[in-house]
Amino acid sequence: MGRLTGLLEAELKATNEAIVARMDSPVVLIPQLAAHIVAAGGKRMRPLLTLATAKLCGYQGTRQVKLAACVEFIHTATLLHDDVVDESMLRRGFASANAVFGNKASVLVGDFLFSRAFELMVEDGSLEVLRILSSASATIAEGEVLQLTTQNDISTTEDKYFDVIRGKTAALFAAAAEVGGVIAGVGAEECAALQGFGMDLGMAFQLVDDALDYAADQTQLGKTVGDDFREGKLTYPVILALAEANEQERAFWVRTIEQSEHTEEDLATALKLIQKYDVTARTIARADQFIDSAVNILARFPQSDVRSALADVARYTTARRH
Amino acid sequence: MGRLTGLLEAELKATNEAIVARMDSPVVLIPQLAAHIVAAGGKRMRPLLTLATAKLCGYQGTRQVKLAACVEFIHTATLLHDDVVDESMLRRGFASANAVFGNKASVLVGDFLFSRAFELMVEDGSLEVLRILSSASATIAEGEVLQLTTQNDISTTEDKYFDVIRGKTAALFAAAAEVGGVIAGVGAEECAALQGFGMDLGMAFQLVDDALDYAADQTQLGKTVGDDFREGKLTYPVILALAEANEQERAFWVRTIEQSEHTEEDLATALKLIQKYDVTARTIARADQFIDSAVNILARFPQSDVRSALADVARYTTARRH
Repeated sequence: MGRLTGLLEAELKATNEAIVARMDSPVVLIPQLAAHIVAAGGKRMRPLLTLATAKLCGYQGTRQVKLAACVEFIHTATLLHDDVVDESMLRRGFASANAVFGNKASVLVGDFLFSRAFELMVEDGSLEVLRILSSASATIAEGEVLQLTTQNDISTTEDKYFDVIRGKTAALFAAAAEVGGVIAGVGAEECAALQGFGMDLGMAFQLVDDALDYAADQTQLGKTVGDDFREGKLTYPVILALAEANEQERAFWVRTIEQSEHTEEDLATALKLIQKYDVTARTIARADQFIDSAVNILARFPQSDVRSALADVARYTTARRH
Repeated sequence: MGRLTGLLEAELKATNEAIVARMDSPVVLIPQLAAHIVAAGGKRMRPLLTLATAKLCGYQGTRQVKLAACVEFIHTATLLHDDVVDESMLRRGFASANAVFGNKASVLVGDFLFSRAFELMVEDGSLEVLRILSSASATIAEGEVLQLTTQNDISTTEDKYFDVIRGKTAALFAAAAEVGGVIAGVGAEECAALQGFGMDLGMAFQLVDDALDYAADQTQLGKTVGDDFREGKLTYPVILALAEANEQERAFWVRTIEQSEHTEEDLATALKLIQKYDVTARTIARADQFIDSAVNILARFPQSDVRSALADVARYTTARRH
């Protein structure tokens, strides 16, 4: 990631400035709350994708900065709404916005950032960019609702799980990557390739995230281990462990995930079952398939520093646990 | 209202069909939850404004239908988020969506409808319409957040109250009215006039709503009397009553609104104080000033059936209590 951010240092700095400038409002609670989540940082993965693909396609202008800020605003809005939804108390190792400011303010400031993203796109003036990002936004919401309906449902299939993460995570990666190509004015085929690259990267990213929820220690990842388990989320690790479960293990998953009845030792038991069936490694291996596909797509673009830095970022996705 | 809906019967029917068709999704909870709030009905006030101003400006095409659906989607999204925010259990006399489906689903389906609204605007293809409605959406969120920060604060001024309702309510009325003129292709002056008409109408509408919260009986209005009181909202009636309050009355408002300490008899006491200072009539009188301004603006447009029906709707706003 370091090399890519190095190559895009100026654009990333301008994007961060645009984010701070455009999240402002005379209603002071808005920049206060937004600053809380923006200051928490994150890796600016999604806006970086827009900046990187614009450069990859030889774009020379400055439109990518504002659009990268849009992408980050949409992402931040979904985080704010997601934190309300999941009642999570940690986000990137900091107290989540809803824990500090309350659910009410988080929902409304999310709405503000989302609206502001569309205002920025209108300023940019491309209907094609508006089409890509409004469609991605609807898909994100569909993915989140689908996740809600699969929660606590241990009959959830792999296919449905992939539908969920394609919507809630990969769609915005895909849109962010495509937008860079659109403003560079490359053809439909290249735009579709960038979209596919972002989609694969997003799928891998979420798979790794879901693996880490049963593996990482809290200080490293900045999120509580076992969040997904406690919330009864049907993630890939659980689906894999369920497929192999003996009768007793299945009863454990039914009680904890389906019936949400938890005792203090349950997380330890869950982690043991995950280990028993080598689930973490198998989840990462599935993510690696997406990364291979993503890197293959990149090979269609001319060799450049940014191309190889993007490929490094992709490969690093599945190495996050180290 | 009957006359206006009669004049726009075909367009309104098409709009309702577009609403049902476009709130669909393969994720079945989305149309289920959306149907719950759409079926609850409401008067389709905001989409009617778009349909009416398009006709007022002599528009002959069909774009108003899709854009009226957009306006209703944005409104529905804010209702869904508002119900989560206010923890209200009644909406238009029916159980609110969050009471039936939970806060999580309400936030996410709101996000979906909001995104879908922008997708529809992109299909329509007018950057000017996108500018108007994205700006209105940001303003709505600002108004809602401002309302949150004035809650329980009895030092809230009339000016601040008007800022809140201009944002949370009137901005969408204004945008809905302006969009009709934009697609009819009228000049900037007429568009500004329509925007002003919608703004005045929205201000009056919210003032009446706030008056009725201390006056209406539940079956008539479809909302619980005293909701605003219990939530500590600083609405116009409370601001008026506070301005006249003697020492004992002020202590009552401080305890109930500022410190949120309620006993069973408090609502009755509040209603008595509202009556003592003739607050309801004075709030309606303030609304009537906005309506006068709205009707004056209409007079700039050529006489037509739709113009007089629109004026009737405006005048009826402040007669809702009867």
